[in-house]
Amino acid sequence: MSILIYDVTAVTMCDELGVIPQAYIAVEGNRIAYVGTQKPPGHFDHVINGGGMAAMPGLVNAHTHIAMTLLRSYADDMNLQDWLFQKIFPFEDTLTPEQVYHGSLIGIMEMLASGTTCFHDMYFFQEETARAAELLGIRGVLNEGITDAVLDVKLEKTERLIEQVKNGSGRLRVGISPHAVYTCKPETLRRCAAFAKEYGLRLHTHLSETLTENEDCQRDYGKSPTQLMEACGLFSIPLTAAHGVWLSDEDMDILKKNHAAVVHNPTSNLKLASGVAEIPKLIEKGICVALGTDGASSNNNLDMFEEMKLCGILHKGVLRNPTVLPAWEVLKMATVNGAKALGYDDLGMLKEGYLADLILVDFHSPHLMPNHNTVSNLVYAARGNDVAYTMVDGQIVYRRGKESAIYSQQQKTADDFLI
Amino acid sequence: MSILIYDVTAVTMCDELGVIPQAYIAVEGNRIAYVGTQKPPGHFDHVINGGGMAAMPGLVNAHTHIAMTLLRSYADDMNLQDWLFQKIFPFEDTLTPEQVYHGSLIGIMEMLASGTTCFHDMYFFQEETARAAELLGIRGVLNEGITDAVLDVKLEKTERLIEQVKNGSGRLRVGISPHAVYTCKPETLRRCAAFAKEYGLRLHTHLSETLTENEDCQRDYGKSPTQLMEACGLFSIPLTAAHGVWLSDEDMDILKKNHAAVVHNPTSNLKLASGVAEIPKLIEKGICVALGTDGASSNNNLDMFEEMKLCGILHKGVLRNPTVLPAWEVLKMATVNGAKALGYDDLGMLKEGYLADLILVDFHSPHLMPNHNTVSNLVYAARGNDVAYTMVDGQIVYRRGKESAIYSQQQKTADDFLI
Repeated sequence: MSILIYDVTAVTMCDELGVIPQAYIAVEGNRIAYVGTQKPPGHFDHVINGGGMAAMPGLVNAHTHIAMTLLRSYADDMNLQDWLFQKIFPFEDTLTPEQVYHGSLIGIMEMLASGTTCFHDMYFFQEETARAAELLGIRGVLNEGITDAVLDVKLEKTERLIEQVKNGSGRLRVGISPHAVYTCKPETLRRCAAFAKEYGLRLHTHLSETLTENEDCQRDYGKSPTQLMEACGLFSIPLTAAHGVWLSDEDMDILKKNHAAVVHNPTSNLKLASGVAEIPKLIEKGICVALGTDGASSNNNLDMFEEMKLCGILHKGVLRNPTVLPAWEVLKMATVNGAKALGYDDLGMLKEGYLADLILVDFHSPHLMPNHNTVSNLVYAARGNDVAYTMVDGQIVYRRGKESAIYSQQQKTADDFLI
Repeated sequence: MSILIYDVTAVTMCDELGVIPQAYIAVEGNRIAYVGTQKPPGHFDHVINGGGMAAMPGLVNAHTHIAMTLLRSYADDMNLQDWLFQKIFPFEDTLTPEQVYHGSLIGIMEMLASGTTCFHDMYFFQEETARAAELLGIRGVLNEGITDAVLDVKLEKTERLIEQVKNGSGRLRVGISPHAVYTCKPETLRRCAAFAKEYGLRLHTHLSETLTENEDCQRDYGKSPTQLMEACGLFSIPLTAAHGVWLSDEDMDILKKNHAAVVHNPTSNLKLASGVAEIPKLIEKGICVALGTDGASSNNNLDMFEEMKLCGILHKGVLRNPTVLPAWEVLKMATVNGAKALGYDDLGMLKEGYLADLILVDFHSPHLMPNHNTVSNLVYAARGNDVAYTMVDGQIVYRRGKESAIYSQQQKTADDFLI
C-alpha cells in the first residue's frame, strides 16, 4: 500500500532536515519513501490532507509494563512498601493470561490513540501481550520480567516467545529482562547475559531507581547496581536501563563506555517519590537517553506527550536553568533516542528509507493556537488526544473519531479498532 | 432553565458528601438544587445521561494572564531576562485591544473545553477580556495589572471595568492587581490598598516568584516581599498571592494570620526555573492554596488537569514522600480552594445551593480504564480533552464534538461556540 500526506508540517527529528512546512510525505509499503517540499509523482492508494496538522515520527515508549493498565488508579498516595506488598504484588499474584491479554489491549489502544507507535515492555505472560500487539498493529520489544525464583521458567518462556514472534508480522522483537539487582542474584544476571548472547537479544532492566536499591546493593555486594551489573557481564550485551535516578558519575561513565541507553520515567519517579534523575548530565556525557511512562500503576496513564512536557520542564526547575533540555532535545528522547534504545537504527525519524511509523497531530484546537513554533507546541502544549492519525509499519492503525465502537465494548474484542 | 443529570459518579468535593456513585444532580436556574441518589421529582428542561462519566465542580484557574495565549510557544527554553526583555515585553508593547479580545477568546475557549469554569485574570485591556468572557459564558474575576508608570490610568480603567461588569451577566467580578513588589513602589501598593478598600475589591498579586525578587526586595527595603506588602497595608484587604515559591516560615505566618490565599503554578515555576513552592507546608499551616496555570507563554497551555497531575506528583518526588498531597487534596485545590481564593463561598462543590458550575468528564477512553478510583483517575490519568460537558451558571457552554465549527474559524467569531 502507498500513502501520500500533503500540506503537512513535517517535524522530521533529523537534525539536518529539521522542520519542513507544507511538506509531502510518501509511504510505500512499510517504509518512508519521500519527505520534502516537492510533490512526488505517481499514484497513491490513500491521500491524506495534512493541513493544520504536524507530522512526526511515532513516539517510542521505552519503558513500560503494559498490562499494568489493569492496576491504573488501583493504589495511589501510599508508601512504596505498602503500595508494593499490600496492593500491587497481591493483585499480580492472581493475574491470569487472559487478564494480561485484556490489560495489554487497553494499554496498546491507549498508546496508539496518544501517538505511541512502539513500546518496550517488561511483564508476565508476554505471549498474551504479543497477541494483543499483533491484533492492534503496534511495534514493540517484549521482555519476560525475570527474578531468581522464576529464572528457568522465564528463559523457557522467552524461547517460546522468540518462536511466536518469528511467525508474526515482523513488528515485534524479543529481549530479556533481569528485573533488577534486588530481585536477581549475580548468578541470575550472569545466566541472563549468557542467554542474551546465545540468542542475540538486547537486555532491558531496572537500574538505580531508588536510593534504597543503591544502599542495599552496596551493603550486600560492596558495589553500586551498575558496578554489579558490569561485574556480571551484563554490559557485554546491548543494554537499556530504566530510571537511573541514583547513578553516580562513575556509574554514568560505565554506561557510556558500554554504549548502554537510559530510559527516563519522570512521572513515575516523582509519583513514587524515587527522586529526579540527572538527565542533562547523562546527555552531556553522550549517553543515549530515551523516555518512558513506566506502568499505569505508577503514572497513571501512558501518554508520552505528558511525559515529554514533564521532562522538558522538570529539569529546568530542579537545576534552576530554563535553557536545559530544549523542546527539540525532548522530542528526540521520545522518538529517535527511543528507537536507538530499543535497537532500531531505521526508526524514529521522518526520513527516506526509515520505517513508516508516524503520527499526525491536529492543531485545530484552541490549546494549540496560535502556532508560533510547532516543536514547542508539540512538547509544551499538546496532549495525547490531539493525535488524529497513527501509522505503524505503513498501516494506519488509529484514526481519531473511529474508535468509539471498540471503546464502548470495554476492549473485550478489538477487531473494530483496526481500519 | 432546569437540568437533570442522572447515573453519574458525583465527585462533590465536599468532605461530608465525598463521591456518590449513580447520582442525580438537579440544576435550577444558576444553582445546584439537588445532589444525591434519589430521583428528584418534577419536570426538567434538559436531561443528561451521565453514565460512564464523572461530574465534578468546574475547575478554577486561580492565576492566569488569559490573553497571553497570543504568546503561546512564542519564546521558550530561554534565560528569564532574555525571555522577558527580548521577547515578551516587546511583543506586549505592541498589543492592541482587539488582539487582547481575540487572545482572550482563544484562552477562554481552551479553558471551557478543558473543564475550567472560572478564572482569575491579570493583564491589559481587561474590558476586552470581559467582552470575551461575557460572550463565551465563563465566570471570572478580572484585574488590570498595575505598575508604577500606569497607576492612575489603571485605577481609572478599573473604575470603568467595575461599571461595565455591573451591567453584565453577573458572572464577572473585578479585583485589583498591583503586579509585584519589583514593579510597584510602596506608594503604589498603598494606593492600590486604599482603592481596594474604597470599592470593596480583592487584591491579586505576584509574590516571591523568584529568588531574585526576594533578594532585590531585601536589598532595597530590608524586608521580604511579604513583609513589604504587610507594611504597605495590602493584607488589610482579602488578598490572593500567586507563586509563593520563596516564602520563609515567617512570610507564611503573615499570610496565615491575614487569611491570604496562595496560588500554586507548578508548571510555570518549573519551566521558568523559578523553583518549587513548599505547598505541603503551606497547607499544613492552614493556608488556603489554590491552583493556576499562569499565562500560556510560560506553560504553554491552560489545562488544569495537567496542573493537578503535576501538583500531585511533584511534591511527592521533591520531598521523597509518596503520601503528600493525595488526589482528593489536589482536587480541592483546583475547585473549592480556588473558589475561596477568588472570594466565593458558594462555589467549587457539588452541593445544594451552590452555583451551578460543573463539568462532566467522559471515562469512555482506554486511558481512563479500568476505573478503580474515580478521584485518582481524575487527577493522575485524565486530560483536558476528556471533558464532555462544561456548565457555568446553570448553562451548558461547551459540549465536546460541537466546537469544530468555531475552531476552524480561528476564533474570529465565537457565537457558534455557544449551544
